[in-house]
Amino acid sequence: MTVGGQSPIVVQSMTKTDTRDIMSTINQIKGLEDCGCELVRVAVPDAEAAQSIQAIKKAITIPLIADIHFDYRLALMALAAGADGLRLNPGNINEPENIGKVVRAARERQVPIRIGVNAGSLPTTTDPQSTAAERMVTAALEQVKLLESLDFDLIKVSLKASDVPTTIEAYQDIARKIPYPLHIGITEAGTPKTGIIRSAVGTGTLLYLGIGDTIRVSLTAHPREEVIAAYEILKSLNLRQRGPILISCPSCGRTEVDIVKLAQEVEAQLATIDRPIKVAVMGCVVNGPGEAREADIGIACGKGRGVLFKKGEKIGVVEEADFLNTLMSEIEKMCQESR
Amino acid sequence: MTVGGQSPIVVQSMTKTDTRDIMSTINQIKGLEDCGCELVRVAVPDAEAAQSIQAIKKAITIPLIADIHFDYRLALMALAAGADGLRLNPGNINEPENIGKVVRAARERQVPIRIGVNAGSLPTTTDPQSTAAERMVTAALEQVKLLESLDFDLIKVSLKASDVPTTIEAYQDIARKIPYPLHIGITEAGTPKTGIIRSAVGTGTLLYLGIGDTIRVSLTAHPREEVIAAYEILKSLNLRQRGPILISCPSCGRTEVDIVKLAQEVEAQLATIDRPIKVAVMGCVVNGPGEAREADIGIACGKGRGVLFKKGEKIGVVEEADFLNTLMSEIEKMCQESR
Repeated sequence: MTVGGQSPIVVQSMTKTDTRDIMSTINQIKGLEDCGCELVRVAVPDAEAAQSIQAIKKAITIPLIADIHFDYRLALMALAAGADGLRLNPGNINEPENIGKVVRAARERQVPIRIGVNAGSLPTTTDPQSTAAERMVTAALEQVKLLESLDFDLIKVSLKASDVPTTIEAYQDIARKIPYPLHIGITEAGTPKTGIIRSAVGTGTLLYLGIGDTIRVSLTAHPREEVIAAYEILKSLNLRQRGPILISCPSCGRTEVDIVKLAQEVEAQLATIDRPIKVAVMGCVVNGPGEAREADIGIACGKGRGVLFKKGEKIGVVEEADFLNTLMSEIEKMCQESR
Repeated sequence: MTVGGQSPIVVQSMTKTDTRDIMSTINQIKGLEDCGCELVRVAVPDAEAAQSIQAIKKAITIPLIADIHFDYRLALMALAAGADGLRLNPGNINEPENIGKVVRAARERQVPIRIGVNAGSLPTTTDPQSTAAERMVTAALEQVKLLESLDFDLIKVSLKASDVPTTIEAYQDIARKIPYPLHIGITEAGTPKTGIIRSAVGTGTLLYLGIGDTIRVSLTAHPREEVIAAYEILKSLNLRQRGPILISCPSCGRTEVDIVKLAQEVEAQLATIDRPIKVAVMGCVVNGPGEAREADIGIACGKGRGVLFKKGEKIGVVEEADFLNTLMSEIEKMCQESR
């Protein structure tokens, strides 16, 4: 798992189970692996949680990062238990001597450290007159210098705020100042309803600007939702592929078939397909043929019948009753062909 | 309703009813008005739809835009019926003589025209060797020049593709080339599940870059969902206010209360509040106090009890059983105070 440089942007999440509950944590991580999570972080609030990492690591395949706050000794324990990465928060672990101990242990094992700055827990020493973005960058740079002075460069940095423009500003600033991979995300983004939008606007803007090497979408929900949303964000910018893409028209007063129902049915059936196939479900002759032609498989529906397109070629006319079945059987066929 | 310049970014949507079904269309528009829609577009596929505008206009309060394709005469009828704006598609109405007739009628009434370019219906005359973004910009600029040559400048432009980077690229290019307000959106973005993410990434990036005067989120769903999503995108960038903002932590192995449940309950109760109040529901001592302090009302929950913050001040300690009620009664109190 390489994070940074020209590598694909890595999707990560964090468990919401009690880390000391080893079975629940393993089960949650296995579920995340199944939906494409590539790195997982676990909270390490105490020694028992740190020691649990050893058993958890044996049962999972993706790298595990220990999330450490307040007590540097938990970082040492997590490393001894086999953690593949550490996240330290400069807002609550900032005694250079203690950080030195952690850095030496991480260097020995060649384990990366993320300097995870969060606007909700900034060090109290930073200048309160500066903006939140400036304070986050200052806190991160101080820690980066400390790690560099200890001859350590396996560094990742994150600068998360719940305010989207603050987050974007902070990442743009630090991207100009350091060469290390950036972990991006909007913190405390909220429930899926609004949190997905806040995360998509914030990380999407950063990714479009070329900023971000690994992404975590924080949602007040099951972590599976975080992974799915992260892939949708990356897919929307053509940065990663994962499963089908469904293009469908909003429908309007011009539409003569129930496009909302058809699109929902197609979406439900596409859920079992893992190929990155592009499907278009369109409701009229305005943009229908154009979009359907650009997709791998597309249908442009008119009154009672639709025109089916495959890789830009018109391949047939379908009766309304057969829209779903014909589309899905063509998709299945295309998936077979591409194996 | 001013679109462009320093005016707030206007939220719009499009009806999905048959425009000829006047009662259904009025009802849908009234529902959209209730959730904050500020401009509404209706499809005008035939003369009966154009004539329906007159009756629809009488029953609604927001401006109505007629969406015209193929037949310029429908634009003339829509203007005669009282449409407050026109959307023309250069991909299917491009005879200068006919456009001239529409422009003269619009100028007489001082009705704006949106040049609505869509990647799925580009004019066939544009150079097929160029990129989709270039072809969209070329098509729009040709039409802009034609309208300017007819001494008309009440122009808006949109350049929508279903591909997000193509859309962003096209808008960035045209924003440098013309002074007119831009209507932004991702076309055929799909069902809410993925369409909201594609729209948030695309329009969010544009808005962050300072591009966009009015927004339409296209979703294969009820248009109410489009309006709600548009506001959430604008709110995430602090460009518009509408109702409360809920900051909530994703929870993790450190959390000792059911934050997902609490956040969902708070979200449900906030739905009835229209004040732009910022509420934080946080699950631990790491970022909890910091975020709760930044919110108007916030709670940082620990095991069995939480600390309540109001406008940055700690105002009390709450037992777990009272989290929801205490938080909501403080929110109600703050809403009363701000009236």
